[in-house]
Amino acid sequence: MEKVKVGIIGAGGYGGCGAVELLLQHPNAEIAALIEKQDVGKAMSDIYPHLKGFCDLPLIDPDGPALSYDFQVAFFATPDGVGQKEAASFLKKGIKVIDYSGDFRFNNPEAYRGYATRIGKTGEHASPDLLSQSVYGLSELHREELAKTNLVGNPGCFAVSCILGLAPALKSGLIETEAIICDAKTGVSGAGKNPSPTFHYPARYETMNAYRISGHQHVFEIERELGLIAGKELLITFTPHVVPVSRGILTTIYGQLKHGLDIKNVEEAYRSFYSDEPFVRVFGPQTPLSSTDVRGSNFCNLSLNVDQRTAKLIVVSLIDNLVKGQAGSAVQNMNILFGLDETAGLLKPGLYP
Amino acid sequence: MEKVKVGIIGAGGYGGCGAVELLLQHPNAEIAALIEKQDVGKAMSDIYPHLKGFCDLPLIDPDGPALSYDFQVAFFATPDGVGQKEAASFLKKGIKVIDYSGDFRFNNPEAYRGYATRIGKTGEHASPDLLSQSVYGLSELHREELAKTNLVGNPGCFAVSCILGLAPALKSGLIETEAIICDAKTGVSGAGKNPSPTFHYPARYETMNAYRISGHQHVFEIERELGLIAGKELLITFTPHVVPVSRGILTTIYGQLKHGLDIKNVEEAYRSFYSDEPFVRVFGPQTPLSSTDVRGSNFCNLSLNVDQRTAKLIVVSLIDNLVKGQAGSAVQNMNILFGLDETAGLLKPGLYP
Amino acid sequence: MEKVKVGIIGAGGYGGCGAVELLLQHPNAEIAALIEKQDVGKAMSDIYPHLKGFCDLPLIDPDGPALSYDFQVAFFATPDGVGQKEAASFLKKGIKVIDYSGDFRFNNPEAYRGYATRIGKTGEHASPDLLSQSVYGLSELHREELAKTNLVGNPGCFAVSCILGLAPALKSGLIETEAIICDAKTGVSGAGKNPSPTFHYPARYETMNAYRISGHQHVFEIERELGLIAGKELLITFTPHVVPVSRGILTTIYGQLKHGLDIKNVEEAYRSFYSDEPFVRVFGPQTPLSSTDVRGSNFCNLSLNVDQRTAKLIVVSLIDNLVKGQAGSAVQNMNILFGLDETAGLLKPGLYP
Amino acid sequence: MEKVKVGIIGAGGYGGCGAVELLLQHPNAEIAALIEKQDVGKAMSDIYPHLKGFCDLPLIDPDGPALSYDFQVAFFATPDGVGQKEAASFLKKGIKVIDYSGDFRFNNPEAYRGYATRIGKTGEHASPDLLSQSVYGLSELHREELAKTNLVGNPGCFAVSCILGLAPALKSGLIETEAIICDAKTGVSGAGKNPSPTFHYPARYETMNAYRISGHQHVFEIERELGLIAGKELLITFTPHVVPVSRGILTTIYGQLKHGLDIKNVEEAYRSFYSDEPFVRVFGPQTPLSSTDVRGSNFCNLSLNVDQRTAKLIVVSLIDNLVKGQAGSAVQNMNILFGLDETAGLLKPGLYP
Repeated sequence: MEKVKVGIIGAGGYGGCGAVELLLQHPNAEIAALIEKQDVGKAMSDIYPHLKGFCDLPLIDPDGPALSYDFQVAFFATPDGVGQKEAASFLKKGIKVIDYSGDFRFNNPEAYRGYATRIGKTGEHASPDLLSQSVYGLSELHREELAKTNLVGNPGCFAVSCILGLAPALKSGLIETEAIICDAKTGVSGAGKNPSPTFHYPARYETMNAYRISGHQHVFEIERELGLIAGKELLITFTPHVVPVSRGILTTIYGQLKHGLDIKNVEEAYRSFYSDEPFVRVFGPQTPLSSTDVRGSNFCNLSLNVDQRTAKLIVVSLIDNLVKGQAGSAVQNMNILFGLDETAGLLKPGLYP
Repeated sequence: MEKVKVGIIGAGGYGGCGAVELLLQHPNAEIAALIEKQDVGKAMSDIYPHLKGFCDLPLIDPDGPALSYDFQVAFFATPDGVGQKEAASFLKKGIKVIDYSGDFRFNNPEAYRGYATRIGKTGEHASPDLLSQSVYGLSELHREELAKTNLVGNPGCFAVSCILGLAPALKSGLIETEAIICDAKTGVSGAGKNPSPTFHYPARYETMNAYRISGHQHVFEIERELGLIAGKELLITFTPHVVPVSRGILTTIYGQLKHGLDIKNVEEAYRSFYSDEPFVRVFGPQTPLSSTDVRGSNFCNLSLNVDQRTAKLIVVSLIDNLVKGQAGSAVQNMNILFGLDETAGLLKPGLYP
Repeated sequence: MEKVKVGIIGAGGYGGCGAVELLLQHPNAEIAALIEKQDVGKAMSDIYPHLKGFCDLPLIDPDGPALSYDFQVAFFATPDGVGQKEAASFLKKGIKVIDYSGDFRFNNPEAYRGYATRIGKTGEHASPDLLSQSVYGLSELHREELAKTNLVGNPGCFAVSCILGLAPALKSGLIETEAIICDAKTGVSGAGKNPSPTFHYPARYETMNAYRISGHQHVFEIERELGLIAGKELLITFTPHVVPVSRGILTTIYGQLKHGLDIKNVEEAYRSFYSDEPFVRVFGPQTPLSSTDVRGSNFCNLSLNVDQRTAKLIVVSLIDNLVKGQAGSAVQNMNILFGLDETAGLLKPGLYP
Repeated sequence: MEKVKVGIIGAGGYGGCGAVELLLQHPNAEIAALIEKQDVGKAMSDIYPHLKGFCDLPLIDPDGPALSYDFQVAFFATPDGVGQKEAASFLKKGIKVIDYSGDFRFNNPEAYRGYATRIGKTGEHASPDLLSQSVYGLSELHREELAKTNLVGNPGCFAVSCILGLAPALKSGLIETEAIICDAKTGVSGAGKNPSPTFHYPARYETMNAYRISGHQHVFEIERELGLIAGKELLITFTPHVVPVSRGILTTIYGQLKHGLDIKNVEEAYRSFYSDEPFVRVFGPQTPLSSTDVRGSNFCNLSLNVDQRTAKLIVVSLIDNLVKGQAGSAVQNMNILFGLDETAGLLKPGLYP
C-alpha cells in the first residue's frame, strides 16, 4: 500500500515536532513537506537535534515556490487564526486538513465567536462556510463522521482530558449535570515553544499557578461535546493550572453522584463505554496513577473514585498533552480519515524515567 | 527581655530544620536543644550544611543524659504518635508544647479516632486526658485560646491552606455549605525527609499524581474548623496531589455562591475578615499569583474569583507548606503563647528565583 | 527468521526497564523471561505502568520453578557481584550472557581486583576462570571479538562517554598522554531505582555535587581501553558529578594538543575514526549540543573544540546513560553476538521536549 | 548611625532583586531608589511578588524627573555597557558606584578591549579615564584598595568561584602554573531574567550543555587576578556549562600538584589563606558538598582533594551565583567602601530544601 503523504504547516513548533516523531515510525504514512515561516531553509534536525538522521528535511516557506502541495493531508500545527485563512486553498487541491487550533472545532460561526472572543480575537471566522463541514476530532466520539470528512478540528488538549473523563458518566447518567468541576494541571509544553517570562526556567521551576480562572477557552468545546452526550446544555467549571513538568495533563474531575449509585456502577459504566477503545484505559480506585504513565504515548488513563461521604464521583484523567492532547490525536484522526488501522503508528509506550 | 528558650524534638527532619531557620533570626527566642533519635552527636550543620556557622549544636538523644530540659517550649517536629506519648513529661516540667502532628489537633478521643484510623493507627490516643487542654494552632482563628494554653496541636499543612481559604466565605455565608471542594497541589517536601520510591528524583521529576483520593486525614480538621465557623456540620471533598516542586501548597477551592452575590461581596467579606491579619493577603481576580510568591515566608496569599456562568466562588490559596504550613505556624503560635509580638521572627520575604 | 529470545535478570531496575523498552520495538528479538528477586509475580507493567499492554509479563523468581531458561541470551541487569556468581550456569546451558556490571569488564583477576576494591568488594572474583573469555562490550572498539564470544562485560556508563570521546585523539596521537582530564556530569537515573537520601526529590532538585573525586571505579576500564589504543599505560583524572536531570551524561574531556596541530587535524581524525559508526556523531565547534539531543537514543554525540590559547583539545561527549550507557549498548552487543544488523531495534530518535 | 542610602540601577533584573533582598535585612543600609527603564511606575513588588509589603517602592525612570540622586552609593545592576556611560554622572555627584558588569573590572582600556570583544562589543570603553580609579571587587583580595575607592567593578560570577578556588594554590606555589583547568557548571539564573529559547522551561529542564567553549569572557579577570598572585602571566582553560538548577555555580578546578606535595600541604595553604575570611569555608576531602549548601548565602565553600595517581589538585568551588557571585559581593563591597562591618547584612543561612 502506498503511504499517505503528510504536509505539516507550522512544523517548527512542538506540535509539528510531535507529529514528526510519530510519523517517522508510522507504517502507512510519511512526511512529505515541512512548512514553516521561521527558520526557512534550515533542516528540521537543526531545530530539533534529536531528529538528526531521522528527519533532515528542510523547512519550506509557505509563501515560497518550494511548496508543491504534493501530499494528501495537511496538519495545521499552527496557532488560532492560521488554519481558517489557509485551509480552503488546501482543501480545494483535494488535500484533507487536520487543524490543531480552535479554528475548526465549532461548526457554526456563533459557536466559534464565543470561543474566539475568549482568546482576544474579534470573533469573525475567516472561512465561515467551511465550518459546517468540519468535524470535531475527538476520535473516540466522532469516529464515524471523521471517516467521511476532509476537515478536522483537532481537540484542545484540556478538552481531551475532560471529555474522555466525563463522557461515560454523562452517557450513563451517573452524575448530576450541575456542579461539574474540572480542575486541570498541565505541563509547560502546552504553552508552546516560544519563550516568555512566565515560562523562563528560573521563573517556572518550583512554581505552581492557576490561570484564566473561569475564563479559559477550552470550556466551550467541553460543554458542547458533553452536552451532546447528556442531551442537554451544560455549564462546567474549568480551572487550568501550570506546574513544573514539561509534558502531561492531569485533570481532577468532580461530579455529584446520583442517589443510590456507587463505585461499582461507575466502573461498569466506564469499562463498558471504553471497552473497545484502544487508547483509553480505565482503572479502579486502588491503582495509583501518575502522569508519567502516559508520557510520550497516546493513551488516556482514567482513575475512578467515589467519595462516599460527599457522594462525589472523582475521576482523575491523565494524558500527554503533546500526544493524545495534540499530535497523537491528529495522527489517530488521520488514520480514520484514510481508512487505516486507527492505532497505526501509535501503539508504543513512552520513555521512563 | 530574656529570650524564650526552645527545644526541638525531631530536629533532624524538615520540620526541625524549618524551625531552626526561623528561630536563628528571631529577636526574642533562641534554640536551646536539638533532640533527635537519629544522628545523635552529629552537629545540626552536619545534617544541614547550609546551617554551618549558624547552628552547630549537637543532636541530643531524647533518652540520654544530655537532655537537660532547660527550655520553656518544646517543638515536637515529630511524626504522629510521638507527641502523645512524650508531651506529658515536658508539660509536667512546665515546658509548653507545640506538636506538629495530628496528636493534639482534636480535643476529644472520639474525634482523634477518626483521624487516626485514616493514617493506619489504632485510634487509641496515648494521653486522652491531655486532649481537652490542647488548642488547635491556627493562629488566625484561635489566637485567644492559644494565649492561655500550654499545649498546641499545630495544624496540618493542607488544612492551613483550606481553612484560611474558606473561613471568610463561611463566616459571611457567601456559599452553600454543601458541595465544597478543595483540590490541593503540594510540593514534595510535605512528605518529609525520608526517601521513598515515590519521591526518588527520577520517579518524581516530570510527575504529577493524585493520592489518598477521598481518604486524606487532614479533611477532619478542615471540616471541624469550618463547621465551627459555619455553625453547622460540614462535609468537604478534599483531594491532594503531588507535583514536582519542593515547597508550596496551592489549593483551588470551589464553593457554590449564593444567589445574588458577586465578586464585590466576596472581596468585601475576605478583606474584612483578614483586615488585621499580618500573614494573610487577599488579592482580587486580576492579580496573577504563584506559589513562589510565598516560598520561604509565613504568608498565605488568597486569590478571589467568581465564575459567573456557574455561580462558583473559586479561591486559590497559596502557602509554603514548610513555613505557614508547619514551622512558621509553630513560631507564630509560640509568639502568642509567650505574649510576644505575633510577627516576631516571621516578617521576612522568601528567596527568589 | 526466528527472533532471538532474551531473558532479563534484574528486570525490575532501570536497566531492565530500558532493555524492555528497546526489545519491544526490536524486529529480531523478543522478551522471553523477566527475572527479578523483588516483586515476584507482579507484572512488569505493575512496576512500570507506562509498559501496560506492551509488557505485562510476570516477574519470575530466579530461584523458583518458573524459570525455564528458554532463551538464547541473558541480560544481567544486576548490580556488581551477581553476574559473576550466576553467569556460569547460564553459559553451561548455551545461553550467552551480557552483564551490565563490572563483573566481566576485566579479563584477569588482578585487573578486576583494582576495580572491585574501589566499590567496597573484597576483590576476589567468584568465577575467575570465566574472565579470560569475556569481552569488553564497547561495540565500536571490540566488534570482532564480540562476534565470537558468549560473555560480554557491558561497559560502564561513564566509560562509554570517556572512551568514545578520547579514542580518536589517542589513536591519531593528537594529544599528550599525560594530563588527560575527564569531567563528567550525570543524571540521577545512573544511581538506579532504589531511593536514597541523596536522591530524594527535595534534596536533589536544585542541587549539584561532585562525588568520589579521584576514586570512581570506572576510571580503570577507561585507562585500559585507551591505553590499548595509545599503546602505552595511561593515568587519567576522572571526576563525576551529579546534576538534577534524570537521564544523560555530559563529559567534558581535556587533553594537551600536540605542537602544530589544530582543529582541522582534530576534526579529520575524529571523522575518519567514526566514519562507519552508526551511533557516534561528530560535530565541529560551531554546533551547540545538549544532553537532550541524545535523550532516549543510542547515540553518542561528540563536540570537538580547540582552545588555541592553551593548546587544549576539549571534547564534549554526550550520551543517554540508560541507552548508549547501558541497555542500548547491551542490545547493540546482542545484535553483534547473534549476527544481526548492529543497528536493529536501535535506530530511533528520543522524545522531545 | 545613619543608614547608607542605596540606589539600584537596573532594579528589575535578578541582580536588582538580589540586592533588594539583602538590603532589606541590612542593619546599616536602606534602599533609597529603584531605577529601571522597564516597568516604570510599577512597584518592585509588582515585579517580584514575594517582596510585597517589604519593598513596594516604585521603579523610577533613569531619564525622568523622579530620580533625585538622594543616595550615597549606586549599584549598577545593569548589563555590560550601561555603567561605563552613566557612572560618571553619579560619581560627580559624590555617589559611589558598584557596577555588576565587566565595565569596570579592568583598569586600562587595553585590558578592557580583550574582554569586550569577547562579548561582541567594539572594545572602546565609553569612559576610559575612569578605569584607572576602578577597583576589582573581589573583597577577599582587594579589601584595602576597595576601602579607598569610589568605583568598583564587581566580579563576574564564574570569576569569583575560580579565583577563590585557586588563589591559595598559586600563592603557596602548590601547583604548576601551566595546565590549570576550570570546569564550571552554573544555574540558569546566571543568564538573567529575560526569557530566551535556550532557557524556556521545556527546553531547559532535563538539559545540560557546555557553551562558549574556550571563548567565555570571564577568563580574563581570572587570569589577571591569579597572575597577580602567582607573579607571572597565566593562561587558564575555562569551560562553562549550564545545568537545570536556578541558582548555584560549582566549578571543578584542576591543577598539576608540584612534586612532593600532598593533601596536607594543600589543606594547610588553604586554611591559612582563608583563616580570617568570613565568607570562605575550606573543607577536606571527606566532606561531601553540594551547591545547596550555599544557596541563598554569601559563602564560597571549597572542597580540597588530591588525586595521588595523577598528582592533580582538584578543588571544588561552590557559590550562589546571585549572592557571592553578584549581589552579595556588591553588598560586601559596599560595606568595605563605607567602613561598615564587612559581614553586615550578609551573615545568614539560605533556605533548605
